[in-house]
Amino acid sequence: MASCLIGRQLSLCVQKNLWLSSAGCRYVSKAAAKTQVEYDYDGPLMKTTVPGPRSQELTKQLGDIQNVGAVHFFCNYEDSRGNYLVDVDGNRMLDIYTQISSIPIGYNHPALLKLMTNPNNLSTFVNRPALGILPPENFPDKITESLLSIAPSGMSRVQTMACGSCSNENAFKSIFIWYRNKERGHNTPSEEELTSCMTNQGPGCPDLSILSFMGGFHGRTMGCLATTHSKVIHKLDIPSFDWPVAPFPRLKYPLEEFSRENAQEEARCLEEVEDLIVKWRQKGKPVAGIVVEPIQSEGGDNHASADFFRNLRNISRKHGCAFHVDEVQTGGGCTGKFWAHEHWGMDDPAEIVSFSKKLLTGGYYQKDELQADKPYRIFNTWMGDPSKNLFLVEVLNVIRRENLLEEVTRSGKALLNGLYELQAQYPGLLSRARGQGTFCAIDARDAATRDRLMLQARDKGVLLGGCGDQSIRFRPALVFKEYHVHIFLNIFNDVLAQYK
Amino acid sequence: MASCLIGRQLSLCVQKNLWLSSAGCRYVSKAAAKTQVEYDYDGPLMKTTVPGPRSQELTKQLGDIQNVGAVHFFCNYEDSRGNYLVDVDGNRMLDIYTQISSIPIGYNHPALLKLMTNPNNLSTFVNRPALGILPPENFPDKITESLLSIAPSGMSRVQTMACGSCSNENAFKSIFIWYRNKERGHNTPSEEELTSCMTNQGPGCPDLSILSFMGGFHGRTMGCLATTHSKVIHKLDIPSFDWPVAPFPRLKYPLEEFSRENAQEEARCLEEVEDLIVKWRQKGKPVAGIVVEPIQSEGGDNHASADFFRNLRNISRKHGCAFHVDEVQTGGGCTGKFWAHEHWGMDDPAEIVSFSKKLLTGGYYQKDELQADKPYRIFNTWMGDPSKNLFLVEVLNVIRRENLLEEVTRSGKALLNGLYELQAQYPGLLSRARGQGTFCAIDARDAATRDRLMLQARDKGVLLGGCGDQSIRFRPALVFKEYHVHIFLNIFNDVLAQYK
Repeated sequence: MASCLIGRQLSLCVQKNLWLSSAGCRYVSKAAAKTQVEYDYDGPLMKTTVPGPRSQELTKQLGDIQNVGAVHFFCNYEDSRGNYLVDVDGNRMLDIYTQISSIPIGYNHPALLKLMTNPNNLSTFVNRPALGILPPENFPDKITESLLSIAPSGMSRVQTMACGSCSNENAFKSIFIWYRNKERGHNTPSEEELTSCMTNQGPGCPDLSILSFMGGFHGRTMGCLATTHSKVIHKLDIPSFDWPVAPFPRLKYPLEEFSRENAQEEARCLEEVEDLIVKWRQKGKPVAGIVVEPIQSEGGDNHASADFFRNLRNISRKHGCAFHVDEVQTGGGCTGKFWAHEHWGMDDPAEIVSFSKKLLTGGYYQKDELQADKPYRIFNTWMGDPSKNLFLVEVLNVIRRENLLEEVTRSGKALLNGLYELQAQYPGLLSRARGQGTFCAIDARDAATRDRLMLQARDKGVLLGGCGDQSIRFRPALVFKEYHVHIFLNIFNDVLAQYK
Repeated sequence: MASCLIGRQLSLCVQKNLWLSSAGCRYVSKAAAKTQVEYDYDGPLMKTTVPGPRSQELTKQLGDIQNVGAVHFFCNYEDSRGNYLVDVDGNRMLDIYTQISSIPIGYNHPALLKLMTNPNNLSTFVNRPALGILPPENFPDKITESLLSIAPSGMSRVQTMACGSCSNENAFKSIFIWYRNKERGHNTPSEEELTSCMTNQGPGCPDLSILSFMGGFHGRTMGCLATTHSKVIHKLDIPSFDWPVAPFPRLKYPLEEFSRENAQEEARCLEEVEDLIVKWRQKGKPVAGIVVEPIQSEGGDNHASADFFRNLRNISRKHGCAFHVDEVQTGGGCTGKFWAHEHWGMDDPAEIVSFSKKLLTGGYYQKDELQADKPYRIFNTWMGDPSKNLFLVEVLNVIRRENLLEEVTRSGKALLNGLYELQAQYPGLLSRARGQGTFCAIDARDAATRDRLMLQARDKGVLLGGCGDQSIRFRPALVFKEYHVHIFLNIFNDVLAQYK
């Protein structure tokens, strides 16, 4: 292992500054000053267009096994490092999408590699336990060190799960169980409930609903999918539940310039939320919970004000619905706070907060009263994966040690300011720059342009992701520094210059 | 690492034969002859009742964070080895439940530990990719070496997923998409479908159904849960779909002694399946797929004949429903074949076969025509975990190298014969011994007795699991040899002797 790390350091030295020789860089942005991210590369380095020949060959091979229509290219994860993803054709790209926002501190972070070399950790990888019945000795400590150390205000209970969808599915189930016990006034079901639930019928399987928002994304398993409304491709042909869908505010950016109009739009949406809760209660399908993202991510990076969320929280309280904040994409520090909902400044922000992606394990926090009253109601074989908790402990150590939330705030400002400048420079091409921390987005004039811009940026060594109809979303790792912002802005400016 | 392995070998030598000194063993069964499982312990070794004081302390600690009602005890996975699970109080138990049937080749198998010491593998653990868009270079090869090398007859396509529930959810979605394209006659949805699906309404979200069986278990997320009908605790208070539930044959055991009655019972169930398909079509909720376990596991180890499944398969063909065989618990070799459905002897056993647990990764195989027609229809962030595929390659190597399927057949015969003997010896206490390979079960006279028997066996060093109302299920790893069968039978006989 040691020799392997040394080998890496060596190859890093060799590759140093090679990016300066990559074609077409014009320095409109600040000079990029490298900081302390020693394990990082110095810049992009492109050898082919992307996907290159080796990626194309592998895509063909995989195409015999799976649908490969979504595959961008194949990666050399061993050579990837920090903010840079290396592909199988030797192209090195500045990664501002990070595996759909799921790499917290960059590729091959030394702290994570080191963890793998500790023999005490091996059995955690090799023997995956059924956590709900036979947890490992260090499980309570690791959960306390990791997830509990960043628990949202008012929550001391956390349940791990394998992925984001499972987290939301089980969070919904917790909500339904809590709601029915509340309706009953006790937790002893009737004989009729016990019998009817076995064939999916009421009253045992009650007609409860979860209210969600148009443009929201909460996963793709069938419960989650009933609350997901971002793209047709996710939902078409899949049976669903008749659950209410409220409008999410469509705000004007920059938010501070349109505060009056935006407040009106938010009030309209909140009114609709209350109307829907009443309507669905009258329909006999009471709303047991409201699920919302602090920033609608997959749906196009739609923001709303802290006031909107505080009012929404109040509506949930007023109508006795659980408030479920889905932080699968917004959580983990990318907005400059560990949880995006911290920007609302509330002591009691929610009943449930779910997470996954950057947290490496799925799961959800909940208030005491939301925890299912009996064992095996919220349960499955694995209930998460303790090897991910090991990594998370290290990730949190790095975040604290390197003050990464401050870095994110700093880089985020630089990024958003850069985007403002670019949209001022290319008003027909770009608009609606917006963001919190490095969790930023900008719109292209249409979907085709957005897609073309992203491909052109990729061929120049910057990897971006799309969201919504015509947005580019920025989802760098937390180790994305001002230095990287300027590398991106320089390259993106070159791409845009072609549209002049 | 090497020193660590050597240390383990040493401690193994020291502990050798210590189990002979454990109290209360009467040798009613064959003398237990140790075979080549060198990394295994020699027998159980109990120091406390279970849970011991340290487990109780940790359970209390975890209880402040989660519901711990299902926690049996805490484990020392580092010291666990082969067929033996060691707990935090130093108790070493012969594990015949293996983390709800999910440990394929025992604890800390040297082949898996070795894999962890290969520096080339580290980046696979440290950098979890979004497999659907940015797969690692070795992904097609690893999938080919592992999952494709054991693909069910007629299937060359496989999709990995993070867990069993996600596998079944996505398999259902594939079925719905396939079915709707078949109904349409093409894959171009109408404007009305595109619009209506965004608010969960038809025709975009069609009223299709999946037919499942009473007693079946297919997971606990909301789509899966609508096909799960094994226990009230899984379903109570959770909204569901109005999908048809057919009776699963309740057979008499041993099967060969009751072939006439059992055939009648199976015919009755098959007739009901056809009636339900017709009825649900008339209700406007056509059955797009039938999902079934080859042996109902969670629901009580309910078997059916190969004829039953062949006829069921024919019914699915006749009515144009996809046939989905859920091998999450039965797959991976425990029935003596890699897939339990191989016992049916069919070239075209199913449209979809799902797996998880012993395969270490979730996922499903499908026939070509079941693969979704467009990218992003079956998709999520992680789409599995390639580090699990690495382990699976090694697990399959070990299974082949050590002829573990033959071992399972041999051990399974010894186990089932032993259970037959015990139920003959204790007719008021035990009944309905049944099994295929080591995938065996036996019923106790009632639930309370079953639970007590399991606790008593545990205190003597044998870990068992329950299923159904009053069954004990046997789910050892594939390295469970005849030798281990006799250790179990001796101990279990001692437990039973107390009931004389």
